[in-house]
Amino acid sequence: MKVEDWTWGARHHARSTAIVGATGVTGVELAAILLDAGHPPERIACYARTDGALNVHGRRLPVAQMPSDPRSLAAYDVVFLCTPTEVSQALAPRLAELGARVVDLSSAFREDPAVPLVVPEINGRVLAGDPRLVANPNCTTAIACLPLAVVERLAGLEEVVIASYQAASGAGAAGLETLHGELRESLGLPRGHGRPTPFPAPIALNVIPAISTVGEDGTSGEERKIAFETRKILGLSGLLVESTTVRVPVERCHSVAVHLRTRTPLAPEALVAALRAAPGIAWVADPHGPRPRESAGRDEVFVGRVRAGARGPTSLAFFAVGDQLRKGAALNAVQVAAALFAAR
Amino acid sequence: MKVEDWTWGARHHARSTAIVGATGVTGVELAAILLDAGHPPERIACYARTDGALNVHGRRLPVAQMPSDPRSLAAYDVVFLCTPTEVSQALAPRLAELGARVVDLSSAFREDPAVPLVVPEINGRVLAGDPRLVANPNCTTAIACLPLAVVERLAGLEEVVIASYQAASGAGAAGLETLHGELRESLGLPRGHGRPTPFPAPIALNVIPAISTVGEDGTSGEERKIAFETRKILGLSGLLVESTTVRVPVERCHSVAVHLRTRTPLAPEALVAALRAAPGIAWVADPHGPRPRESAGRDEVFVGRVRAGARGPTSLAFFAVGDQLRKGAALNAVQVAAALFAAR
Repeated sequence: MKVEDWTWGARHHARSTAIVGATGVTGVELAAILLDAGHPPERIACYARTDGALNVHGRRLPVAQMPSDPRSLAAYDVVFLCTPTEVSQALAPRLAELGARVVDLSSAFREDPAVPLVVPEINGRVLAGDPRLVANPNCTTAIACLPLAVVERLAGLEEVVIASYQAASGAGAAGLETLHGELRESLGLPRGHGRPTPFPAPIALNVIPAISTVGEDGTSGEERKIAFETRKILGLSGLLVESTTVRVPVERCHSVAVHLRTRTPLAPEALVAALRAAPGIAWVADPHGPRPRESAGRDEVFVGRVRAGARGPTSLAFFAVGDQLRKGAALNAVQVAAALFAAR
Repeated sequence: MKVEDWTWGARHHARSTAIVGATGVTGVELAAILLDAGHPPERIACYARTDGALNVHGRRLPVAQMPSDPRSLAAYDVVFLCTPTEVSQALAPRLAELGARVVDLSSAFREDPAVPLVVPEINGRVLAGDPRLVANPNCTTAIACLPLAVVERLAGLEEVVIASYQAASGAGAAGLETLHGELRESLGLPRGHGRPTPFPAPIALNVIPAISTVGEDGTSGEERKIAFETRKILGLSGLLVESTTVRVPVERCHSVAVHLRTRTPLAPEALVAALRAAPGIAWVADPHGPRPRESAGRDEVFVGRVRAGARGPTSLAFFAVGDQLRKGAALNAVQVAAALFAAR
C-alpha cells in the first residue's frame, strides 16, 4: 500500500502539514514519506527545539524553532507530534482544542480511552468520527498487529506470545550511533563519536533482553505497551498477550516471533492465503525469512514461517518483520492523517 | 559447578581420553575444559581428518589422523565424538561394541530410544547403568532444559514456547568468521577471508529466523530437535513444545525467551528461590540480563527475567543464556563422562 494511493488531498491543494520534533529519526522519516508521496515541500513546516534545516533525499527543508504559542501550530491542517511523551502531553490537547488534527507518535495518549489508537488497515473506521487527536501505536505493536488482525478475522484470537528482535535505531539516532561505534571498537577501530549510549549494556555482538524500564512485576515498559495496545487496536479487551522484548544488534526493522492460539481451528494454508491478500502485508515464501536487512526502508510488514503449533489445531506460529520507522511509526502516522482527510 | 568437582579419576591416574574431531570449535573447547580441569595433556589423544596440532591456552596438543581401524580408538577409557552426524553414525556403535565408553556430540543417536540423552543435573541417574553410548543434547535444548527441569520439579510442566537468539559460532568456526568478515565489510573494511558462509543470508546486522533445513510442515530442524530432546531429557513424553529458532549476530552464547505453563500454580518468587539453589544455574538479578556477551566462556546457564505470565497463575516467563560450546556442548559431554566414571 503506497501513501500516494490514499487520498492525501489533491496535489495542487495539498494539506498544510506541521512536523513537530522534525529532527529526530521519526520526524525525518515522516518528512521523507511526505516528500516521496509528492507532498510539496512548501506545505511541510518543520519544528524542533532549535532552528536549522533538514536534508531529506537531497532536498532541504528549513526547521523553525518551536513557537511558544500553540495557536500558530493549530493553523495547520494536520500536526504530527514526533515529540517526547511529556511534550506531547502538554501540547496535543491544546492543539486539538484549537481545532487542529493531531497525530501523536509518543506514548502519551495511547492508553487514554478517549483517544483512538489507530492502525488504519485494522481499525481505521474509528477515524470516520473525525477525532482531533489520534495516537500512533508503539512500533513493535503496529508491526505485530497487522498479521494478528488477519488471524483474528479468520478464527478469533485467544492468546498471543511474542518474542521480539528490536533494532538499535528503535532507540533513535543515538542507538544507531552506539551500535556503529561499538562495532568499530570490536574490530579494533576508534569508536568515532561521543554520544552516550541509550542502552543499559553493550549492544554490539550482544542481545539485551528487556527494553525500557522493568517494573516491580518484572515486566518491561515495552512489554506492557505491547499487551495494552494490541488489545486496544484489535478491540479485544480479553486477549491474553505475553511478550519478551529484546534489543538486537540490527540497524533497522523490528522482528517478532509469534506463537498464538485461536478460538476455532485455523490451517496454516488458510492463514497464508489470507495474508497474501491482506493490505499492508507482504508474504515471504523464503523458509529462512523474512529478515530485517531486506525489509529496511519498505512500507509492508513482511510475514513468513507460518506453521502449525504443537498445541493442537488452534495453535499457530509466524515470524514478522517491519521497518519500525515506517509502518512502526512515520508511515502509519501519515496513513492515519490521509485516512482522516479521505473521509472529508 | 566446576568439572574439577566431579570425580574425574584421580589426578595421578587420569582416564585415557580420545577427542575425535578435535580441530572443530567443540573439539577445541573440550580439550580446553579437560586441560583446565587438570587432566594431564598426555592422557588426551586428539584425532581429526588430517594430522597436525592444537594450540589450547598456550599448550600444544598433537593431532593424529583418524585411524582406519576403530579398535585403536576403543582402547581409550572414553571417546568423545565431535564428528559430523554421518561419521558418528558409523563409528559410535562400533566403538561401543568394542567396549569403549562413547559420548557422541552429534545428533546421530539423540532420537534413538536405546541411547540415553543426558544433561547430568537433570537425568544423570540414567548413567548408573553404565551405558557404552551416551548422546549429548542439542546446544539450545541443553541450555533451556536446565531451568525448565527446575520448573517441572516445582509445579509440573504443561507447555513451553521458546524463541531463541543463537550465536554465529553455533555454526562452527565458519559461522564466526562469516560474522566478523561481514561486519568488517559493513564498516568499509576488507572482508578478510574466503571461507563460504554457512548461513542462508547475511548475518551481520541481521537476524535469520530459521536454523538448519525447514521441513514440509514449516518447522526447522533445530525446532524439531528442541521439541523432541526436551521431552526426552525431562522424561515428559506429552510435553507440548513450540519454538522459533533464530540466528543473531552474536559471537558466542545462545539465549532463549521462554513462556510456559505449569500444571499447578507457581509464583515467580518460588521459582527464583529454586533457581538460586539449582546446580549449574546462576541467577541474574539485573532486570536487563542475562546477556550473551557477559556469559561467554562460563559454565553456568544464566537465568533472569522470571515473571508471571498473562495466562493465569500457571503461566510464567524467563530468559536464559548459556555458552553453547560449554554447557551447550563440550562441558556437558565432559560432565557426562565424569558422571559415568564417578559411578564406578
